[in-house]
Amino acid sequence: MTTQSFPKSVSIREVGPRDGLQNEAKFIPTDDKIQWINHLSNTGLNYIEVTSFVNPTWIPALSDAEYVAKQIKKNPDITYAALVPNIKGLSRALESGIDEVAVFLSASETHNKKNINKTISETENVLSEVVKESISNKKTVRGYISTVFGCPYEGKIEIDQVIRLADSLFEMGINELSLGDTIGIANPSQVKLVLEQLLNRYPVESIAMHFHNTRGTALANVLASLEMGISKFDSSLGGLGGCPYAPGASGNLATDDLNYMLTTMGIETNIESDKLNTAAMYIQSKLQKPLDSYSVKYYESQLK
Amino acid sequence: MTTQSFPKSVSIREVGPRDGLQNEAKFIPTDDKIQWINHLSNTGLNYIEVTSFVNPTWIPALSDAEYVAKQIKKNPDITYAALVPNIKGLSRALESGIDEVAVFLSASETHNKKNINKTISETENVLSEVVKESISNKKTVRGYISTVFGCPYEGKIEIDQVIRLADSLFEMGINELSLGDTIGIANPSQVKLVLEQLLNRYPVESIAMHFHNTRGTALANVLASLEMGISKFDSSLGGLGGCPYAPGASGNLATDDLNYMLTTMGIETNIESDKLNTAAMYIQSKLQKPLDSYSVKYYESQLK
Repeated sequence: MTTQSFPKSVSIREVGPRDGLQNEAKFIPTDDKIQWINHLSNTGLNYIEVTSFVNPTWIPALSDAEYVAKQIKKNPDITYAALVPNIKGLSRALESGIDEVAVFLSASETHNKKNINKTISETENVLSEVVKESISNKKTVRGYISTVFGCPYEGKIEIDQVIRLADSLFEMGINELSLGDTIGIANPSQVKLVLEQLLNRYPVESIAMHFHNTRGTALANVLASLEMGISKFDSSLGGLGGCPYAPGASGNLATDDLNYMLTTMGIETNIESDKLNTAAMYIQSKLQKPLDSYSVKYYESQLK
Repeated sequence: MTTQSFPKSVSIREVGPRDGLQNEAKFIPTDDKIQWINHLSNTGLNYIEVTSFVNPTWIPALSDAEYVAKQIKKNPDITYAALVPNIKGLSRALESGIDEVAVFLSASETHNKKNINKTISETENVLSEVVKESISNKKTVRGYISTVFGCPYEGKIEIDQVIRLADSLFEMGINELSLGDTIGIANPSQVKLVLEQLLNRYPVESIAMHFHNTRGTALANVLASLEMGISKFDSSLGGLGGCPYAPGASGNLATDDLNYMLTTMGIETNIESDKLNTAAMYIQSKLQKPLDSYSVKYYESQLK
């Protein structure tokens, strides 16, 4: 019944410029994206996923990936990452001077097919080459597995499948694995069960959690993860984003809400909340619609 | 690192008809309130706080307390409770055939004064009489302490103050104490610290938690409470309500979101989620504005 010990500090991986903006119907002008990322670089965040080098016809919202990656003002203390689907995307990413490469696949065959238009096995072959090439270009690689806790098409996902893919990605040479609850269906007990198995195989420092707040459970799932020692979490400022290929999915966990919970728990994030608010107000003005996070809404209620 | 054991079952105390509706600008017609409570009685809930016997000039939204309490269709398996501020309210409640009396005060002197227009000490004198009279009328009594985790006027609340008031209420004769995070400011570590102290003094069955979701942390705070053995939680269907005297406060924890997390964790609530949706759609149509819970929004997205 005693209070558990949590990690002393947490690194938040800000995915808003990629996972957030890729789902926006409105195209945010390149200069505004760059300005937003510059604001984010000023908050104390040490990791920002800035764009995606997928084929621009798939994700028109991020068709300006090169410009964004090249023109942001880089802070040497921050890792600037980008999503890369294949070797062609990798050359664009390398040419744009990205720090870290993020590769992705789904634990669900159907979701993988709809999202990437390949089988999981075909995707693994492509990613294997991407990881090899990234490493030979002295880039670290992050791997995403999506639909870890459930799939909108297939329902339950077997944990053995997640483990098989995690093994496959770590064998390729990724240095960090992000486990995605793409449709926001996870519950804290399930999070602990999945993590128990993965932490038997990999060091806790190599695992990050990527929760969506579709059913309001994201921060409870963060708490369950903290209790397992996890200290890396993906989130999107203001809760921007979701997954366009996952029906019913809405809302990444909001960076500002995550930061509120962590800091009030005495867990260090190194993020200045007033600068987070500044960055949130900036992108909200460009999106011309209200951000969905509790902290942004609370902040705005206090301005009135 | 092993998965913790949680309570096998949880009782949700539905407070929407009182804590939800009392904050609505729109007066819900008496017959609609009665119909809504009848819908709630049909969901499997075993506890519903149906109204408040405060002076109708304070809370015009609930000025029909007697009518509601008398005309609802009662299920013998459900405890129907009502808020009672003083002896006058108690006579109205008793005359209306309420099962359980709920008394309330605040851990913050300033919040108590603004909410009840009395000092804490004056309030204790009034409640002492109300509890005594309730018991002599063979009614059980529930006590609420609000602003346990922080006050909008005074900020930090000393835990010793919460303990003193808890002692006072249990000495009066209450059988259950509900600890309120009135402005939704609590974090899971704080919840555990407060509960550690209270559970040294009172049996876990006598403590309920009442979280608001103002910063999105309500379900994380529920998880922290479950880990301490707590099995009674207050919530409001669709997240209806808040506290009119607490600036910035918005949104009770939603019953449907709470029920989603608990049932997916394998914790029994006895509630049928489709009937909860029916009850939510009913009150939403009467309010003529969208309910704010994740589960209601998700349910509606699936209907499209």
